[in-house]
Amino acid sequence: MQTERVIFVTNDDSYLSKGFRHAVALASEFGHVVAIAPDRVQSGMSQAITINSPLFLREVEKRDNVEIYAFSGTPVDCAKIAFDHFFAERKVDLVLSGINHGSNAAVNVMYSGTMGAAIEGSFYGVPSIGLSLDDHDPDADFTGAVEYCRRIIASVLDAEAHLPRPLCLNVNVPRCAASEIEGIRLCRQTRGFWREDFYARQDPHGRDYYWLTGAFQNAEPEAEDTDEWALAHRYVAVVPVQTDLTDYRMLDNLNRVKF
Amino acid sequence: MQTERVIFVTNDDSYLSKGFRHAVALASEFGHVVAIAPDRVQSGMSQAITINSPLFLREVEKRDNVEIYAFSGTPVDCAKIAFDHFFAERKVDLVLSGINHGSNAAVNVMYSGTMGAAIEGSFYGVPSIGLSLDDHDPDADFTGAVEYCRRIIASVLDAEAHLPRPLCLNVNVPRCAASEIEGIRLCRQTRGFWREDFYARQDPHGRDYYWLTGAFQNAEPEAEDTDEWALAHRYVAVVPVQTDLTDYRMLDNLNRVKF
Repeated sequence: MQTERVIFVTNDDSYLSKGFRHAVALASEFGHVVAIAPDRVQSGMSQAITINSPLFLREVEKRDNVEIYAFSGTPVDCAKIAFDHFFAERKVDLVLSGINHGSNAAVNVMYSGTMGAAIEGSFYGVPSIGLSLDDHDPDADFTGAVEYCRRIIASVLDAEAHLPRPLCLNVNVPRCAASEIEGIRLCRQTRGFWREDFYARQDPHGRDYYWLTGAFQNAEPEAEDTDEWALAHRYVAVVPVQTDLTDYRMLDNLNRVKF
Repeated sequence: MQTERVIFVTNDDSYLSKGFRHAVALASEFGHVVAIAPDRVQSGMSQAITINSPLFLREVEKRDNVEIYAFSGTPVDCAKIAFDHFFAERKVDLVLSGINHGSNAAVNVMYSGTMGAAIEGSFYGVPSIGLSLDDHDPDADFTGAVEYCRRIIASVLDAEAHLPRPLCLNVNVPRCAASEIEGIRLCRQTRGFWREDFYARQDPHGRDYYWLTGAFQNAEPEAEDTDEWALAHRYVAVVPVQTDLTDYRMLDNLNRVKF
C-alpha cells in the first residue's frame, strides 16, 4: 500500500531554473517528488506537444525523496511522459508547475508553458497548481512565493478530497518583499490582450529579423475581482482554471445566423 | 478609402500544405489575401509564441490579390507579425487559419496551432475562423471542406457586424465525400482528454527515446450537442471559442477553502 504522498513537479524555465529548484524543495516538504522538467527554456510554449520527433529523458539527480529528470520536450510533454511512464501504476497526489519566473495572470494563462503543464496534469484527475512569481529575473527573490505557495499547497491537499475534478489553479505571486504581501485572493482571469511590438533589425548577414516584444493591455484595470488587480495590490492571485473554451453566449448569437 | 476586403490566412501545417493552399484560394474569392504561414510544420504548437529567438520572414508568392509569406515562427507568431507589421494601418476583415490536416474538435482546440492562430486573430477584434478537416493525410480530399467552409465564411462575413467581439469559430469538417455531409451544426466542445501511449524504442546509438502517440477518450459520446458527435454523424461542427479560462463554478467551491 502506498502511504507517502507523490508529487509531480515540472515547469517551463527548465530544470536549471531557480524557481524550479524552489518548487522541488517545497514539494519535498509534502511527499516524494518526481520532477521532470524541460532540458532547456520552454517559456511561452503554451499547451504545445511534440508530435513529429522523438524525445529523450535523462536522470539528473536522485536523493532522499527527490528524483529529478530532464526531458527534451515541452512542459506538456513532461506531464505526459510522467503520467504514461512514471505514474502508470502509482497514484499521484499533486501536480506543481513552476515556480515560473514571470506572471501568468490574465491571458498569459493561454501562452504559458507552466500553465500548459498544470492544465495537462489536471486532465489526469490530479489536483494541479501552476505557481508563478511576477518577476522575470533569473535570480528573483522567491521568499514570498515559497511562503504563500506552501500555504496554498497545504490548503489544497487538505481540501481536495471535497473538490470536483478537473482541479487546476493558476497562482501568481506579486513582486515584493514577503512581509509586504497583503494575503491571498480568489480571482477571475482579467480581460485584456497583449499588443506586440516587433523589434526589427538586420542580422550580421544583412537579413531582416523580427523579435517579439509587447505589452499587456488590461481591459478592466479597476475590476477588483481580477488577478491583475490582485497582483497590482500585492495580493497572491488564485484563479481556478477550466478548459471548455465554448463561448456559450456566442452560441445564442450564432443561432440567429443563417449558415 | 479601403474598399476591397482584406483576409489574413495562416495555418500550422506550413505554407507548403495542401490545406493551406485551399484556404488561400478560398479566401481569394472574398478579397485581398495576405497569407503568412510557418515555414515548417508546426502542428500541436497550441498558443505558443517565440520569445527567445529572432524570426525571419520570406516572400513566397505575389500575384493578383494574393500575397504569401513564410515565417520562421509559430502559428501565433504569424498572426502577431501580420497585425504588427502588415496590418498596422490596414483594416483586416477576416482571419482564416487552416485548412488543417486533422480534426481540432474537443480538447484538441487546446493543443492546436491552427486554433492558436485563430484565437490570436480574434484578440484583434477581427472575426476569426479555424478550419480543420478530420483527415491527417497530406493529400486529403478537401472538396467537402472547401464547399462548407465557403458557406461558413460567407455567413460570417454577412453577420459579423451584428456579432460581439472577440468572435472566433472552431470549424471541423468530417472525413467523407462532400455529397455525404449532412449539414452544419452549432456545437459545444466535447468533454474528454487524450490518453497518451509513448512509443519507446532505442535510437541507433543505443539511447532510449520516446515518441508521443495517444487516443482521445470521449467522456460523453452520446451527447448530441457536441462537436465530436457532429463529426461522427457527418455534420460540419461549428464551436464558438472564448478564452476566459476561469472556472467560475470552482470559484464557489474554493470560497469554502481556508487558504
